[in-house]
Amino acid sequence: MSADSTILELFEQTRAQTLEIIESLSVEDLCVQPASFVSPIKWHIGHTTWIYEKTLQQVTSDPSFSEAYDLIFNSYYKGIGAHWAQAERGHLSRPTLNQVLDYKKYIDEKILTALEKSIVQKNDLRLAIEHEQQHQELIIMDLKYILSLGLGLVDELPQFKKFTLPTTVKTEDKHFSGGIHSFGHKGSSFCYDNELPYHDELLQDFTLQTELVTNGDYIEFLHSSAFDNSSAWLSDGYDWKNKNKISLPLYWIKEKDDYFTNFFGVKKPIDFNAPISHLSFYEADAYARFMGARLPTEFELELFFRESEQSPLWIWSSTSYHPYPGFKPFEGFAKEYNGKFMSGQMTLRGGCIATPKGHYRPSYRNFYRPTDRWQFSGIKLAKDKR
Amino acid sequence: MSADSTILELFEQTRAQTLEIIESLSVEDLCVQPASFVSPIKWHIGHTTWIYEKTLQQVTSDPSFSEAYDLIFNSYYKGIGAHWAQAERGHLSRPTLNQVLDYKKYIDEKILTALEKSIVQKNDLRLAIEHEQQHQELIIMDLKYILSLGLGLVDELPQFKKFTLPTTVKTEDKHFSGGIHSFGHKGSSFCYDNELPYHDELLQDFTLQTELVTNGDYIEFLHSSAFDNSSAWLSDGYDWKNKNKISLPLYWIKEKDDYFTNFFGVKKPIDFNAPISHLSFYEADAYARFMGARLPTEFELELFFRESEQSPLWIWSSTSYHPYPGFKPFEGFAKEYNGKFMSGQMTLRGGCIATPKGHYRPSYRNFYRPTDRWQFSGIKLAKDKR
Amino acid sequence: MSADSTILELFEQTRAQTLEIIESLSVEDLCVQPASFVSPIKWHIGHTTWIYEKTLQQVTSDPSFSEAYDLIFNSYYKGIGAHWAQAERGHLSRPTLNQVLDYKKYIDEKILTALEKSIVQKNDLRLAIEHEQQHQELIIMDLKYILSLGLGLVDELPQFKKFTLPTTVKTEDKHFSGGIHSFGHKGSSFCYDNELPYHDELLQDFTLQTELVTNGDYIEFLHSSAFDNSSAWLSDGYDWKNKNKISLPLYWIKEKDDYFTNFFGVKKPIDFNAPISHLSFYEADAYARFMGARLPTEFELELFFRESEQSPLWIWSSTSYHPYPGFKPFEGFAKEYNGKFMSGQMTLRGGCIATPKGHYRPSYRNFYRPTDRWQFSGIKLAKDKR
Amino acid sequence: MSADSTILELFEQTRAQTLEIIESLSVEDLCVQPASFVSPIKWHIGHTTWIYEKTLQQVTSDPSFSEAYDLIFNSYYKGIGAHWAQAERGHLSRPTLNQVLDYKKYIDEKILTALEKSIVQKNDLRLAIEHEQQHQELIIMDLKYILSLGLGLVDELPQFKKFTLPTTVKTEDKHFSGGIHSFGHKGSSFCYDNELPYHDELLQDFTLQTELVTNGDYIEFLHSSAFDNSSAWLSDGYDWKNKNKISLPLYWIKEKDDYFTNFFGVKKPIDFNAPISHLSFYEADAYARFMGARLPTEFELELFFRESEQSPLWIWSSTSYHPYPGFKPFEGFAKEYNGKFMSGQMTLRGGCIATPKGHYRPSYRNFYRPTDRWQFSGIKLAKDKR
Repeated sequence: MSADSTILELFEQTRAQTLEIIESLSVEDLCVQPASFVSPIKWHIGHTTWIYEKTLQQVTSDPSFSEAYDLIFNSYYKGIGAHWAQAERGHLSRPTLNQVLDYKKYIDEKILTALEKSIVQKNDLRLAIEHEQQHQELIIMDLKYILSLGLGLVDELPQFKKFTLPTTVKTEDKHFSGGIHSFGHKGSSFCYDNELPYHDELLQDFTLQTELVTNGDYIEFLHSSAFDNSSAWLSDGYDWKNKNKISLPLYWIKEKDDYFTNFFGVKKPIDFNAPISHLSFYEADAYARFMGARLPTEFELELFFRESEQSPLWIWSSTSYHPYPGFKPFEGFAKEYNGKFMSGQMTLRGGCIATPKGHYRPSYRNFYRPTDRWQFSGIKLAKDKR
Repeated sequence: MSADSTILELFEQTRAQTLEIIESLSVEDLCVQPASFVSPIKWHIGHTTWIYEKTLQQVTSDPSFSEAYDLIFNSYYKGIGAHWAQAERGHLSRPTLNQVLDYKKYIDEKILTALEKSIVQKNDLRLAIEHEQQHQELIIMDLKYILSLGLGLVDELPQFKKFTLPTTVKTEDKHFSGGIHSFGHKGSSFCYDNELPYHDELLQDFTLQTELVTNGDYIEFLHSSAFDNSSAWLSDGYDWKNKNKISLPLYWIKEKDDYFTNFFGVKKPIDFNAPISHLSFYEADAYARFMGARLPTEFELELFFRESEQSPLWIWSSTSYHPYPGFKPFEGFAKEYNGKFMSGQMTLRGGCIATPKGHYRPSYRNFYRPTDRWQFSGIKLAKDKR
Repeated sequence: MSADSTILELFEQTRAQTLEIIESLSVEDLCVQPASFVSPIKWHIGHTTWIYEKTLQQVTSDPSFSEAYDLIFNSYYKGIGAHWAQAERGHLSRPTLNQVLDYKKYIDEKILTALEKSIVQKNDLRLAIEHEQQHQELIIMDLKYILSLGLGLVDELPQFKKFTLPTTVKTEDKHFSGGIHSFGHKGSSFCYDNELPYHDELLQDFTLQTELVTNGDYIEFLHSSAFDNSSAWLSDGYDWKNKNKISLPLYWIKEKDDYFTNFFGVKKPIDFNAPISHLSFYEADAYARFMGARLPTEFELELFFRESEQSPLWIWSSTSYHPYPGFKPFEGFAKEYNGKFMSGQMTLRGGCIATPKGHYRPSYRNFYRPTDRWQFSGIKLAKDKR
Repeated sequence: MSADSTILELFEQTRAQTLEIIESLSVEDLCVQPASFVSPIKWHIGHTTWIYEKTLQQVTSDPSFSEAYDLIFNSYYKGIGAHWAQAERGHLSRPTLNQVLDYKKYIDEKILTALEKSIVQKNDLRLAIEHEQQHQELIIMDLKYILSLGLGLVDELPQFKKFTLPTTVKTEDKHFSGGIHSFGHKGSSFCYDNELPYHDELLQDFTLQTELVTNGDYIEFLHSSAFDNSSAWLSDGYDWKNKNKISLPLYWIKEKDDYFTNFFGVKKPIDFNAPISHLSFYEADAYARFMGARLPTEFELELFFRESEQSPLWIWSSTSYHPYPGFKPFEGFAKEYNGKFMSGQMTLRGGCIATPKGHYRPSYRNFYRPTDRWQFSGIKLAKDKR
């Protein structure tokens, strides 16, 4: 199989997968934006398509499909031009879902023709495909939030069943030896700019929880006096908790003494043995302090995941998201891909249940604001070795 | 024809008209909420239906169709129970448009059966019908705003053609004699609580412009130095203008020296001889001061419209919206209909091009915040007689 | 005694009274701004001085004392030039109190010289003196708020004793006959622009409470279920109450079942027979509805006060603050004095315990936002005659 | 000289120095709070005194001086009790400056007696003294901001002359070899909790600018097209710049083509050869990117300052403020001293011209929000060795 046929296959598979995720959802589910951190699903489809279009335009002189789409579907590539405000994507009824799907079809055909004529850069196309995979995970996160507001008005959809978190089996902690280790992506296969360069870091000896912290574990924190006491919390976290009246993890419902979760709009009892998820960094960090432990650094997590399979949840690290020493952004319009967001965010590691197959690597660096909770995020405790 | 058959006809006509307005619009057009003052069109349909349901429940012991709908489709009737936040109606993908239309069908049948069995109060039903007519005007206002954001992505829809404002013919001003005049609704036909009681007011002699101020007239204000000078404006209005960077009426587009209007998503040249519309009270008031005139009081306008046909625009009065002496709210849940909003708003008179036929009377009192601009609002200048 | 010597006396008296109010207060009390509606007391002194300066400059060609003062001590006279943001007056440590007092002395001497040489317009000077008297009342209101934050750290100051509200004696309601009455200021003595023209209004028969609503009366509302029920409140008022967690009148302190008031920083027991004060329009209006009564219109109050002495509190009317028919603003820079604030405010009538002697007339129109509570405001109930 | 006499001397010196800083300032300068990040100077004096009081109460059973002071002068020690909102410290006229100075005198005497009787913990007292020294620097920063608003109304005060930044002499860059180095505080002398434990970090080879970036250097960035182009900026930084309309460093004044600085309320020409100061992290980071360089890490700066004297400015590092591996907070109420702020801030190194003598060490970690500009902050560029 030639390299061309491989990328063609990956392209077609990825484009198809996006449509599978939204199967049998209503047009309404695909066009509302109930929070500024969520995007309308039809926008995700338009935006990923627009990235393919821009990728193509880097090597051809094709005109834009539409000036309006250049404004609407540009997320934040200021080098390309003005973009619609992120928090106002849901204000737009137009283009409609069908118009967006027509746009997708049009650009897909252009890409296929370009692949046939070998006039597209494989690397650029690969980045656009990986980009779409990232948006597939975002679409699932966003749909979980969108459908949660329709609690009681939504039927359980079969394609979301697989996003139920599996029961955790408690096992022994893992011990790791410190010293100089190399981190980041090695070799010529695809990776993002933020995983490079492959470089050395010095670690202390440390111990990591093998499994994830469970709902049952976290309830002990909720039920303790520590939850409302400032001393477990970072100052910013305590302010955030009070300002937003945070008393439960996202999607949790408390009825008398019973806990439920809002699972894509369907109310389900909490599984105490499943991992706790949809926590902000501040909640995760406070839980670790409550337990006399700490969150692991992103490098400790990278070591762990080299010997472990993909995690069902992204694990909050204690590391701020910054460039590796010697970092270089991508070339072309993708130079705005990762570098400019390296402030105000925390790194997460490990992948999650909604991460598309083949998209994840142990060197993968995810990042969110310390207040974000709608991603599939969990906790793995670390301790210093004594 | 019996009274019953009359109200039945009015009910059926009104229910049908709502559906006619939204004909051939996309589901997306009917579910977004691009501003807090706009409601999703599907919400309007659900809410008007819910009012029929509550009307019925006042005389039967029917259970609610859905607890979720009681929360979602309650606008602000706190006496009935909790209601969803107005600014977050567009957060909800559910119920879908189809679910809302099913709800409408279900309640419509209940009403028809109740009418057949004569177990519904005619007065209450009439109020619910008039309420729906008010929402028909709101739906047109909201659609104009929603579609305006899709500028260039929308085809001109035939049902909106009739909302083009007709060219104004300049004629002589009308002179009115002061003295004691009676105002408000007289007789036993339907009216809102805020039009009662029929009562006396003392007026001075005054002169009113017969026609409406035109786009061409208003452009002179825009082009004058007075537009940016504080002295033409009320203090609150000047602050509002600066904070919101108001330089043009709502929907206007300036390209070099040419002016266009965004008409339901379609760009059209300004007709200089058509009435200026979509102005806030502050803009209308500043224009009047610029012209050495003033806005009329609501009673001056009521006198005028007794001898004149329905206006194509609601005319801003200089009168704050307050109860008439001896005002009594409606009975039942409708006691929250008008009275509790009698603060912070200005009265408008005359009807507009989007007001359903038969809904308007000269004693009709409309009211909006002094900053509101998305209603069909215009200016008629008044002067004291010397 | 010549007219000149009269105005000279009034000028000297008024300038002296301002200094008497602030006697033995600390520099700190005179320079903080604990809320945007309060101004630093030293700013009041600078601003009233600046108005005298501007009055003089209208007839002489004197240069400004200081460009910085023209910016800082201009409240909102945009016709004169830029002004410092009202909410940020307390950001400024400079000019110091002593510098402000030097400025006052300098301008006072200029005015005296001008009076001697008869080159100042008596009318303009009179307006500047009346303006200072208004600020004397504001200074007392602002000091009450400023010192309230020092609760327990302030000694009772003798000059504030007179602002204790006297016990109310309950008497019979007064009945008034409707018909056409004339309102506003009549004659050639001083009045503000907003009291003119003297004109006719039509009133219905009505009944007014002779005395003011007392603390004891209002507590019944606080203790009733109506206080937290939406139906007693205007919609805007209910939102304001909830957003600001209003459970008590301003300055009230509840300890178990006992009520106290924070009186210029000193805690005192509530006198149940004294008038309730420091209420917003929304609270006053809700109380009236709770009592099955209504607030009086500003004209009903004007009739009442023609036959009654100055009130210890400003009475909230149900009338929005708007121009009288035929209103004309003052000439010169004072054209911005009252007219531009005629939106978003309610009229109050009657004077108060802090109003300087000789400043008040029955035609006097005071006005505040419906949410304002730091003025000396109270309630007098009205009823329609049956 | 005994240890006791040493700490006694340090205590007396430090208490005296605070008073020297505020010499000949007006009461007004010492009580306003013109921005939420600034505190009134009298609050600094009260708060540092309160910390001495709490230090004493840890070993004695002395009652609080005042419940009100426990509320007002507690900055953020939630373990001790409620505290007044930081942004509202300037709302309080009481306690007055004189009352605060009396409080200071009272507690100072208590401390002296306790030292005499040897009943105070030396370590705790030392922390309280170092704490006061930190506030001395804050007082200078805050006074610079407070007086800047009095531009033109302030005389140059002699005690601020020494905060003029000295002209920079350009020299060769310094090269450093990577490898494992130890960082943090070593030995038994005083240091803060955040400088411990002394531990190893792995560094790459790097080059550091010996001198600081100058005003003249930075003007090239201001004058280039890069300043308004997004590509030089972090995404958060670009948003901050636009939202706050940042076009110049804090305190800069541009008049035509000339640049001035607002130096404690006095306008002075910019010295192009002096270091650029009062920049936010975002501006410093953008400048580095504009120059094809980067900001140094906090460890690179620690290495540099081991061989260099105290810097006239705090240098922005590229390192987020986080605990060192194995970090332990202080004991007692001081456990809230540094640890809980380890989120959302960037580390700065090197000391500054306003740092009290003897307070600084090369291991000293300062930290501010990436948007803060009122501290004495500057830039030193780093490069990777090729």
